[in-house]
Amino acid sequence: MQPDKGTLYLIPVSLGGDSALSTLPPATLEVVRNLRAFIVENAKSARHWLKAVGYPHPLQQARFYLLDEHTREDDLEALLAPLLAGEDCGLMSEAGCPVVADPGAALVRRALDAGVRVVPLVGPSSILLALMASGMNGQRFAFHGYLPVDKVQRATRLKALEAQAGDVTQIFIETPYRNAALLQALLEHCRGDTRLCIAADLMLPTESVATRTIAEWKKRPPDLDRRPAVFLLSRATT
Amino acid sequence: MQPDKGTLYLIPVSLGGDSALSTLPPATLEVVRNLRAFIVENAKSARHWLKAVGYPHPLQQARFYLLDEHTREDDLEALLAPLLAGEDCGLMSEAGCPVVADPGAALVRRALDAGVRVVPLVGPSSILLALMASGMNGQRFAFHGYLPVDKVQRATRLKALEAQAGDVTQIFIETPYRNAALLQALLEHCRGDTRLCIAADLMLPTESVATRTIAEWKKRPPDLDRRPAVFLLSRATT
Repeated sequence: MQPDKGTLYLIPVSLGGDSALSTLPPATLEVVRNLRAFIVENAKSARHWLKAVGYPHPLQQARFYLLDEHTREDDLEALLAPLLAGEDCGLMSEAGCPVVADPGAALVRRALDAGVRVVPLVGPSSILLALMASGMNGQRFAFHGYLPVDKVQRATRLKALEAQAGDVTQIFIETPYRNAALLQALLEHCRGDTRLCIAADLMLPTESVATRTIAEWKKRPPDLDRRPAVFLLSRATT
Repeated sequence: MQPDKGTLYLIPVSLGGDSALSTLPPATLEVVRNLRAFIVENAKSARHWLKAVGYPHPLQQARFYLLDEHTREDDLEALLAPLLAGEDCGLMSEAGCPVVADPGAALVRRALDAGVRVVPLVGPSSILLALMASGMNGQRFAFHGYLPVDKVQRATRLKALEAQAGDVTQIFIETPYRNAALLQALLEHCRGDTRLCIAADLMLPTESVATRTIAEWKKRPPDLDRRPAVFLLSRATT
């Protein structure tokens, strides 16, 4: 007799340290604590995080399967196997929500196609928190992930995003060590009256959210060194 | 001596009933329980929700200020006054996250401009949960809120969204009683091989997430009557 299929739970990973537990709802924690199999972007940080949120079982008894940006389409079958055999699995990024600016979409798609139940769990998303706090239009917005690193391509892209920022809030992110370069490009290529929100260190004690015009930022450039940040552009007139 | 300004907390409102508490993290609940002033979309549902999440004070002692789609720019000054006078306030929609597909952006913008600290709190967002569970591209996505109700305009808009759905996942919502009309328009105007995800009743026991091609949905149309739903379109080939 074929066993019922397992459920694929999508687990938002909060920041480590003291805030790990305080930003996760009980329903999410309950699921996490009952799972034994995890599909993770990084096994070491997954173990660390599970400890921080009070995972009640010995971690040696939990199984970790790797899914990162290097995972190929062919490898997904093996990741689906436990689910098809009836085991519940949790999908976790290093931080934030699986799939959203992180790996996982291809696995979720395969799971849905195979008739596996997929359940997204509630938890923190910097992108969403940044949008809420930006004071920008939340009726229409677009998320672009990482912009090109190449200077010329990035400049072209920033101008294109700025051109769409009248109706639609434009959101993007950068790896923290490149924040300074992105900020410089924003100040150089965007118009003085375009508004830029920088939401940094969200959910940390050093959290800061500020929305200013490019002209204002030029006068008082922020220090974003190694701070995780979300950038939002708007040219809305109301 | 001028008092310090208050903080504007952005409160995600979970669904009522049993799941109200289980989808909110401790850090969010702690803030909510300490507030006495709320800026709300609907005072009656705000009171109901506060009771459901164990608000510990008599509700007669809490103050409710209205902010909805009819609030004019001129009315925002009065809403800012308690914050400027040093009182912490919580901004709440009827459901979901303030600002995101809900009123609040103009108030947040005014608050930021006035030097009020704005703190977004972690909680459920149907839009984000739907994107995670859709199996669609989460590296790039666009949210469009409500589409036009007019048939001709809606058809034009759907075709425009479909044309952008190769690179960028297109997300939109509808008021539940119009779901059937939107679904009919999707099935009529989108191409057979375009993928449509319908995420309905998220966080409820009746939750369902399914991603199928338009051709497949035509064969098995879902019953979305009065179910809150998020719609996502993709023509990504990988």
